[in-house]
Amino acid sequence: MSKIQKIKEKPAKDVNKMQSNQTLNSPVAVSNARIIIENVTPTVDKGNFPVKRVTGEQVVVRADVFTDGHDQVLAFLLFKDAETRDWQEMRMKFLHNDAWEGSFTIATEKDYIFTVRGYASEFTTWQTDLKKKIASGVNIAVDLQIGARMINETALRCLPVEAQKLTAWAAILEKHQDIEAAMAVAVSNELLAIMEANMDVIKSVTFNPAVNVEVDRVRSLFSSWYELFPRSWSAIPGQHGTFKDCERILPEIARMGFDVIYLPPIHPIGQKHRKGKNNSKTCTPVDPGCPWAIGGAAGGHKSIHPELGTMDDFKSFISQARALKMEVALDIAFQCSPDHSYVKDHPQWFKWRPDGTVQYAENPPKKYEDVLPFNFDTPDWQNLWEELKSIFIFWASQGVRIFRVDNPHTKPFLLWDWLIAGVKKEYPDAIFLAEAFTRPKIMYRLAKGGFSQSYTYFTWRNTKKEFEEYLTELSQTNVAEFFRPNFWPNTPDILAEHLQHGVRASFMMRAALAATMSSNWGIYGPAFELCLTEPFPGKEEYNDNEKYEIKQWDWDREGNIKDFIAVLNRIRKENPALQQTRNIRFAKISNEQILAYYKATDDLSNILIIVVNLDPHHTQTGWLEIPWHEFGFNQERVCAAKELIRGEHFSWNGASVFIELDPNSSPVQVIRINQEIS
Amino acid sequence: MSKIQKIKEKPAKDVNKMQSNQTLNSPVAVSNARIIIENVTPTVDKGNFPVKRVTGEQVVVRADVFTDGHDQVLAFLLFKDAETRDWQEMRMKFLHNDAWEGSFTIATEKDYIFTVRGYASEFTTWQTDLKKKIASGVNIAVDLQIGARMINETALRCLPVEAQKLTAWAAILEKHQDIEAAMAVAVSNELLAIMEANMDVIKSVTFNPAVNVEVDRVRSLFSSWYELFPRSWSAIPGQHGTFKDCERILPEIARMGFDVIYLPPIHPIGQKHRKGKNNSKTCTPVDPGCPWAIGGAAGGHKSIHPELGTMDDFKSFISQARALKMEVALDIAFQCSPDHSYVKDHPQWFKWRPDGTVQYAENPPKKYEDVLPFNFDTPDWQNLWEELKSIFIFWASQGVRIFRVDNPHTKPFLLWDWLIAGVKKEYPDAIFLAEAFTRPKIMYRLAKGGFSQSYTYFTWRNTKKEFEEYLTELSQTNVAEFFRPNFWPNTPDILAEHLQHGVRASFMMRAALAATMSSNWGIYGPAFELCLTEPFPGKEEYNDNEKYEIKQWDWDREGNIKDFIAVLNRIRKENPALQQTRNIRFAKISNEQILAYYKATDDLSNILIIVVNLDPHHTQTGWLEIPWHEFGFNQERVCAAKELIRGEHFSWNGASVFIELDPNSSPVQVIRINQEIS
Repeated sequence: MSKIQKIKEKPAKDVNKMQSNQTLNSPVAVSNARIIIENVTPTVDKGNFPVKRVTGEQVVVRADVFTDGHDQVLAFLLFKDAETRDWQEMRMKFLHNDAWEGSFTIATEKDYIFTVRGYASEFTTWQTDLKKKIASGVNIAVDLQIGARMINETALRCLPVEAQKLTAWAAILEKHQDIEAAMAVAVSNELLAIMEANMDVIKSVTFNPAVNVEVDRVRSLFSSWYELFPRSWSAIPGQHGTFKDCERILPEIARMGFDVIYLPPIHPIGQKHRKGKNNSKTCTPVDPGCPWAIGGAAGGHKSIHPELGTMDDFKSFISQARALKMEVALDIAFQCSPDHSYVKDHPQWFKWRPDGTVQYAENPPKKYEDVLPFNFDTPDWQNLWEELKSIFIFWASQGVRIFRVDNPHTKPFLLWDWLIAGVKKEYPDAIFLAEAFTRPKIMYRLAKGGFSQSYTYFTWRNTKKEFEEYLTELSQTNVAEFFRPNFWPNTPDILAEHLQHGVRASFMMRAALAATMSSNWGIYGPAFELCLTEPFPGKEEYNDNEKYEIKQWDWDREGNIKDFIAVLNRIRKENPALQQTRNIRFAKISNEQILAYYKATDDLSNILIIVVNLDPHHTQTGWLEIPWHEFGFNQERVCAAKELIRGEHFSWNGASVFIELDPNSSPVQVIRINQEIS
Repeated sequence: MSKIQKIKEKPAKDVNKMQSNQTLNSPVAVSNARIIIENVTPTVDKGNFPVKRVTGEQVVVRADVFTDGHDQVLAFLLFKDAETRDWQEMRMKFLHNDAWEGSFTIATEKDYIFTVRGYASEFTTWQTDLKKKIASGVNIAVDLQIGARMINETALRCLPVEAQKLTAWAAILEKHQDIEAAMAVAVSNELLAIMEANMDVIKSVTFNPAVNVEVDRVRSLFSSWYELFPRSWSAIPGQHGTFKDCERILPEIARMGFDVIYLPPIHPIGQKHRKGKNNSKTCTPVDPGCPWAIGGAAGGHKSIHPELGTMDDFKSFISQARALKMEVALDIAFQCSPDHSYVKDHPQWFKWRPDGTVQYAENPPKKYEDVLPFNFDTPDWQNLWEELKSIFIFWASQGVRIFRVDNPHTKPFLLWDWLIAGVKKEYPDAIFLAEAFTRPKIMYRLAKGGFSQSYTYFTWRNTKKEFEEYLTELSQTNVAEFFRPNFWPNTPDILAEHLQHGVRASFMMRAALAATMSSNWGIYGPAFELCLTEPFPGKEEYNDNEKYEIKQWDWDREGNIKDFIAVLNRIRKENPALQQTRNIRFAKISNEQILAYYKATDDLSNILIIVVNLDPHHTQTGWLEIPWHEFGFNQERVCAAKELIRGEHFSWNGASVFIELDPNSSPVQVIRINQEIS
């Protein structure tokens, strides 16, 4: 692949030259272009949605490029950020079966655009043919003149220094007094290089439409989330915690290595139909209510629950977090308590029942009378959408740039397409996490429409086969072009079966899986690091759920896995291979209870093999096949390796190595492969 | 799947409602549509090219259709021929994972168009929820009123007879004096059916753009070609044969069961650089020249070689063929002899060398000085294209509707896209066979652009694995939507290796494979049915090739396989399962030398199993696994079967049957599975 060179903008009509379907519908032939460009990848839904990348990531582009007849084809990758006028252009490499490949790296935090251009190179063909004729001893006098004609034509559109060379060479070919010298010039690589670099763009075909690449900041791809309920962190037992209280615990969260503090809704909570402990319909005066029942006398989606503090307190909390290199993420939930002012001020945004009451949320026969859904079929939907967007804009203007969106799949997809695009227009660094635990195509559609990150099925994947299949889908299929997974071992809503029966090693194992398989991960704490296991009877939820009550946490109690989490997050920060998800590949190991996978950076400067004991109760052992070839290593050599959790150094060689994982001491090993040492 | 019903044209704005990418680029929200329709199949290259069918074929449409929230989705397939105003609409069937399926049959020989429409059905959801509430004993008084409101709204857009019913039912629900009666009405299927049949189209979403289906006549899919050189059929030895001579042999070709007589170019042949016997550069005065060196003193592409006869003779030949239910296909080759009048009249359509001579065809170091290619890069390309199209129009106006196009892959793809569309506009029944033996993507691109049939790699597929892979690609992948294979065991250009070493059974085997695997097949005769094996030394071509000389054929000589071919073509005509290619599936048989496959019609009224001995020298035997389940049969029952070549009746049962194929007596068996008999 040749060096990237910056080129002048090509004529617009060329870049937009239509492929043949235009011709099909036209009675008059509109183009005699001879190059066909097909099957350009990556694209998402035929180009309806952009491909996603963050700054620093690569885009590897493939396309089928061919022509009729025998002329040799040259293919070029054209790319630029959307705000730049000139395209960068690079030669693509021929693979096989008419397929070509090229790649570029996202250099700036701006959206990009790329396309493919193809030429049928008459001169390249001429030179190749000439070599055959020379080899066969055919008279090439006329051929040299044909070449000279092409060279002289090309000289007219070259830089002067190249034109001078070409004109001189053409003269040698034309006169061919010295046939040996003429032949030497004719078949020279230097001539070919200049000719190919100056082909007539008018005769090229450029794939249209170009493919959009949505470029986000790095945190969209690499983030570690810590979810907490601020009201549970008062220093005084039984009191409602505040943002000020939470400032106190920020250093410990930072020590664990998290960089996103995510808060459930911080707005005033409704009184009407307020739920009590454990989602009870009976609510006592001391029950604080559920933060997702948004809106009351003190305000709605743009207000702060008075017991948490003031807007200034919130901003101070953000500043303190930022000082520790953490960002604050807010939960935005598009639903209202019956006390929300929207109900009175915009009754047309809700459904009304024939008995004159407002329609509450239902899952028949269950009723959720403390929560009102919006009526997205309202004729006033445009004003509703504008108001909803303004909620994000409001919090962005207060300094929030990360949003966890509650149940986006129960609101129109087109709302999110429009809203996210609108918010990012004003705040290009905004990040949206879709909390949609639903069917796969719905989750993928939300991601296509603009969500930066998505919750996943990680929580419900347990066996080696399940992990391999799911991670392969997320990393090796087209899904990887638009869906950024965020792996959560738990949430306030989900205490999975395996954690209900879990031991300390179960929590370590799930944390390690989430933190090393996915570059985005998060936990709901401190329930997670304290290894809470008690479910509400018969449910996949916590008993005495923090959603409905103020908790008091003994954060440092024995058996917590805070230090282990801190180690995981440190390893993530130190190893770029863990800062993406698309690079995960599975390795073979001779034990169904051990999951083995590896991740490497594109340049192989950082290579990790991770082995996880999926059985929290027993030591498991197995022979791990090291994919030396993938790492560019010779398996006969000895290679230095280091296990990063315990810090042990050792050396490896041979096709397989023996692995032993005791769940109590080391349920997981993260092994960095270093250089060959002998 | 519900009955097809004819419906009124829906409002245009609805059919053209844009999917979300429109919203993405718009600052103002333009649609609050809630249904997403994705992944509509079949399509070809994102809808850039039409899907292909012939009259009578089915189109099975799948799409992912889903909505946000909990409303139940209904999906409809909309289709019509392109000249009809009203869409036909049918309910699609839910498959799984948000995918839906529907199908329709092409009823008329016109192009079709189809799309998918989805609704979020509030009423269906309401009824489902109501049933749950009733089951739980919840008070449903208000719910019944909600239902009544929806029913009354729907009554406004119904036919009077339905409106009357709805209004009466709504009254029962509203008053609910008799709660039992109200519940019975509310949950009734009749109510649901009327409500779902009259949903508000304004709230639906229709996939856009609709998918085009190019509908050709049946012969595009099912045809048997016989290629012959008319000049070799004079009754007087040594004389140049004529169309009149050929009329004499038509009955025998018809007896063999062919329906397309394909003639190499019938135009005047150039004198300059004319080739002699075996493509020799030395040409004697008696050498007739190669028919593909087109154009001389007697005319060009719109003229008939005088020695073949007159235009009237040609038309008479066409009539005689038609009387025997055969069509005449012409070979159109876009190239010229140096004597062609185009060279003088349109020198700008050719390339000229610096020495003032016209550029001939080359494959360095070889020169083909008897053939001049057109210069498709000429600035006068639009006039060149018009002239080339007019050649097809001319012959179509003389009664020819089938064209075999010579080397289309050495002419611009966009030329064919435009030319074929243009010719079919005037002659919708025109059929084009692409003679492109080249790389797969090029062959596929020609088919996408409009060629009705295509030559294939059949000739170079020999082993069981090769056949299974290639036929699976042609029949089970997206290729089947646009590429109609035409299998040729030989052509004047190709005498494959296996036939050079072949015995009579080799020819029978190749004929049987071609005629039963592909619904389109053809032979170059009588070289094929006379089992000619002699190659030009070192080449994959016939020695003393008919392309360069007049042959005399002993058509009835011993060992010919005319009767066998006649049987094959009769079986093809009598068995609709052989009249398509997309339905081929492979069966398991315990012998690598036996290829086993089966074909059935959609309705399973015609089921064939074909077993072919790939070894022409030895008897091969094996246990064939019958895919009874695919045929809807119970393998425990006894089933009547008939071998159609030898006419033997027998009965089969059990999972496997024993097959024995003696190449000398029956290298192939075509077994029709009839009804269960006990």
